[in-house]
Amino acid sequence: MASPQPRTALMFVANGSEDVETVGTLDVLRRAQVQVTVVAVEQAANASHVELSNGTKLVPDQRLEDTTALALTKFDAVVIPGGGPGTQTLKQNGTVLQVLRSYDQNKKTVAAICAGPTVLQAARLGLPSVQGGGAATTLAHRCLRLTSYPTARAQLESDYDYCEDTVVVDGHIITSRGPATALHFGVAIAKALVGDKVATKVAQDMLVV
Amino acid sequence: MASPQPRTALMFVANGSEDVETVGTLDVLRRAQVQVTVVAVEQAANASHVELSNGTKLVPDQRLEDTTALALTKFDAVVIPGGGPGTQTLKQNGTVLQVLRSYDQNKKTVAAICAGPTVLQAARLGLPSVQGGGAATTLAHRCLRLTSYPTARAQLESDYDYCEDTVVVDGHIITSRGPATALHFGVAIAKALVGDKVATKVAQDMLVV
Repeated sequence: MASPQPRTALMFVANGSEDVETVGTLDVLRRAQVQVTVVAVEQAANASHVELSNGTKLVPDQRLEDTTALALTKFDAVVIPGGGPGTQTLKQNGTVLQVLRSYDQNKKTVAAICAGPTVLQAARLGLPSVQGGGAATTLAHRCLRLTSYPTARAQLESDYDYCEDTVVVDGHIITSRGPATALHFGVAIAKALVGDKVATKVAQDMLVV
Repeated sequence: MASPQPRTALMFVANGSEDVETVGTLDVLRRAQVQVTVVAVEQAANASHVELSNGTKLVPDQRLEDTTALALTKFDAVVIPGGGPGTQTLKQNGTVLQVLRSYDQNKKTVAAICAGPTVLQAARLGLPSVQGGGAATTLAHRCLRLTSYPTARAQLESDYDYCEDTVVVDGHIITSRGPATALHFGVAIAKALVGDKVATKVAQDMLVV
């Protein structure tokens, strides 16, 4: 029997993405045999790495500027770590927002942690488009359930069904709260991509309870 | 009033150090304003980074080979992350073992997580020296209480007072269990270096409960 095609994920990072939310999520996904490609947004041209919000120097796999739009659509999931400065950069990048909309429209996994869900909001996931949508549409869309870092709550709860669970899975959209929930977040993404059995084994190996 | 001298820590890493144990610990310590220097052991001469056990490419602050023995003694703490291949490299490095003995003898903080405590064992921390020590010394030294990743238990429990707490603080020696306990480990080191108040604030900010 041929091995199944490996599952893949795209993670966007920038200078100021949160350290453990980035690396903890990567760690879980790669243990689950998900092939993760880390794409740096606005990495300085002469820098070998991005600097995460607390000083971790991370070498990405690719730079956004060296990547075609088509290549960005080929993954099974897209992942957005938190960190204030990092998410500001992601929010302001039209390509990132377009990729998020594309994955959402194709019902592929879209995952965001901490301040990351505000990038989903900037891409208007689960919200009426700027042109369309009346009151009924708005109401329907407000059923998207998500969570975030506590300080992002005020900004999100006007648009979403906000809750404070460690991880919230609403269809293909997975959100989580912050640094201490990064491994749980990774496990939830792994479950969506490779199934409960593999994800649970990884969680056990990492002592996630 | 002059600002207090910042507290400092030395973290040894190698190819195959565990990703979130390395970066999660760094994240906590740097949030606590501890100045951490990441020193790579056996980094390939032409590589800009070390590759952690699940593929994270981390740029260290220094290479061991470019660092004087004296410079390695100036920190307030030394930290050893886990990861099988990484700890094998650290265990086999005489300089690393000598640094660990020096910090231990000076009662400075020595911290190790996951398979990391086996590096403390290789340095014979809390054990009679190879030359000296009879039965009485052995008994006294076996009072050093520590923990580790579960699979390292068998190797450690013959020499130490082994337990399964998330984090074990025995005097100046701090040990912890694995990936999911990395933030708790970092908080315990931060408490030792900068005190409860700052460490507790960092833990709260990271949603560590």
